[in-house]
Amino acid sequence: MSEFDDNLKALRDEIDDIDSQLVALLAKRLAVTSKVGEIKSTEGMPIFAPEREATLISKRREQAKQCGLSGDLIEDILRRLMRDSYVSQDASGYQCINPSCKKIVIVGGKGQLGSVFVDLFQRSSYQVAIIEQEDWPNSKAILAEASVVIVAVPIRLTSMVIHYLNNLPDDCILADFTSVKESPLFEMMQTHKGPVVGLHPMFGPDVTGLIKQTIIVCDGREKPQYQWLLKQFEVWGAKIYQVGAYEHDQAMSIVQVMRHFSTIAYGYHLMEEGADIENLVNMSSPIYRLELIMVGRLFAQDPILYSDIIFANSDNISMMKRFAYRFLELLEDVELGDKEAFVVMFKQVSDWFGDYADDFLAESKTMLLKANELKKH
Amino acid sequence: MSEFDDNLKALRDEIDDIDSQLVALLAKRLAVTSKVGEIKSTEGMPIFAPEREATLISKRREQAKQCGLSGDLIEDILRRLMRDSYVSQDASGYQCINPSCKKIVIVGGKGQLGSVFVDLFQRSSYQVAIIEQEDWPNSKAILAEASVVIVAVPIRLTSMVIHYLNNLPDDCILADFTSVKESPLFEMMQTHKGPVVGLHPMFGPDVTGLIKQTIIVCDGREKPQYQWLLKQFEVWGAKIYQVGAYEHDQAMSIVQVMRHFSTIAYGYHLMEEGADIENLVNMSSPIYRLELIMVGRLFAQDPILYSDIIFANSDNISMMKRFAYRFLELLEDVELGDKEAFVVMFKQVSDWFGDYADDFLAESKTMLLKANELKKH
Repeated sequence: MSEFDDNLKALRDEIDDIDSQLVALLAKRLAVTSKVGEIKSTEGMPIFAPEREATLISKRREQAKQCGLSGDLIEDILRRLMRDSYVSQDASGYQCINPSCKKIVIVGGKGQLGSVFVDLFQRSSYQVAIIEQEDWPNSKAILAEASVVIVAVPIRLTSMVIHYLNNLPDDCILADFTSVKESPLFEMMQTHKGPVVGLHPMFGPDVTGLIKQTIIVCDGREKPQYQWLLKQFEVWGAKIYQVGAYEHDQAMSIVQVMRHFSTIAYGYHLMEEGADIENLVNMSSPIYRLELIMVGRLFAQDPILYSDIIFANSDNISMMKRFAYRFLELLEDVELGDKEAFVVMFKQVSDWFGDYADDFLAESKTMLLKANELKKH
Repeated sequence: MSEFDDNLKALRDEIDDIDSQLVALLAKRLAVTSKVGEIKSTEGMPIFAPEREATLISKRREQAKQCGLSGDLIEDILRRLMRDSYVSQDASGYQCINPSCKKIVIVGGKGQLGSVFVDLFQRSSYQVAIIEQEDWPNSKAILAEASVVIVAVPIRLTSMVIHYLNNLPDDCILADFTSVKESPLFEMMQTHKGPVVGLHPMFGPDVTGLIKQTIIVCDGREKPQYQWLLKQFEVWGAKIYQVGAYEHDQAMSIVQVMRHFSTIAYGYHLMEEGADIENLVNMSSPIYRLELIMVGRLFAQDPILYSDIIFANSDNISMMKRFAYRFLELLEDVELGDKEAFVVMFKQVSDWFGDYADDFLAESKTMLLKANELKKH
């Protein structure tokens, strides 16, 4: 026994020693990637370089294979390192795409999402002003010199705020971050005669940077005038996705309204069923654990965030009703024991998902391994 | 420009050099952890050592902080490394908890889940026999010497298979892996006079090992007789969770039946709404992308897997109907514009989640960053 203990201790010391070298090596790597950030920022080169990322990974996968290491292991680790190195490169500041821009005004710039953009614009050397509720008396002076005005207020206030913005300089770009696009775009076009664009950043306030995050763009008026703004988003690493306002709102009824509503309804159902949450956690498969995490996270947040989005979209009620009816319709198959009908339906949906089903299965494996990895005991 | 290019190239070469050292260091680490696996396997010590894991991580977090590195970064990387090192340690084989066990028979041992256990028992030096459909004519001979018989067949066959097992040696342990527990446990107790235990492994066939995976145990008869079997599962790294069969089935109506059914109904809804999947993917937030992955993955699999579980549990139909009615009930609040009622309900559910809501919010952040990291462009 004692010999075993000695051997185990010696090996564990060796691991500790390797891990210590690992931390030192990663610190060295961080120092170099920070330097890359600095020179890129001076030169105005985008920080996110997908091709460089792909080459870097494939080279190391190759080397890993030769050493008998798993390629997936090294890829996972490199992706994790790059995530942090993007954050550290961000810290060196970004290129300013339009130095002739006089002032950017963010209405609601102290809000969760607004402040993410205030910070990014400032780190790209733009002059940024914020309008919050208490600043409206001085808004005329704040808005007089504006090159860009972005409305980043809660959805229930958007329409009111847009109506206040009826006296902007003619060449000023007017934009908004609302999670619906058709109606604010229409109202901005009514209020302002110059360039107008609808934006929807598809991420929450706890992003560590904009790398690979999506910003949806719905064109309004004088498209060429605001292209520099979209380029600025790309410099920050964001992916621009252009789509019509109507199409956007249709997709969001599913991506946001239905998603939030059904998650809330599911949480309510668990409570009403008198489920024992601790029991559920202990008896979870990794898949169910992930589901429970995604439901529970919502209830740690402000109900207003969600009720605003759901109640502002009452034209989605009929779509969500259809979901409940379909749910009951399928349940009827189960009640009647009609397995065949169920399998036929299942296969139709599989066809509808097409290649995405297999891609998602592969991606989900990584996610489920990660979810299990997070368990502390 | 050329000077910038030179500088960038020099820094990138430096990163490549560091990454190459990184791969070499990880290969060295793997060699040492494999040795740990070998000596642990000889000594019969469990591979998963939660305390050692915790110490190892906290030491490196400390060092990371001193180097100006993120503690989360190093923790994520170490957890990822440990996941692989457990797998490599598995390869050295496992301690055999009960060398006097004559033979383990797995009915359905060629199935997806059955074969995971066949492999694990064999790597722990047990003699393992498999019974598949075609082996029933010889089953008498195969079962004569059995110390353990595990029923690992699809749920629709479980009852039939149990009834065939009416002639086992008196001291043989009879167990099953069915995803319901009350009825098979009852049937096993009727059929066999010796030790009986109901098991439910809470993971799918693509696990890379049993570390941190849950196996639910429902006691049947002669509890002391099968404790060694549970210890064997723990040697493989599994977490044993003991619960009554009724309680198990109640929880599974939510963890499995409701989860699978509502995911399928949601996929069906997307198809029936005529949603454009590519559009949805492009317009996804990380949260919605994760949701879409977890829905789509299901449709890449065999419908029988899911319809079997759903149709075998027809007593859950009323519980699922209640979900649809609650969904419609909450939708009524939206229709009536009763935001206040909605917020009150939301807060009740938050209270029901208790501390789990905040824990889940924190865990979900890691998961969402990971989901975004997986995007290739």
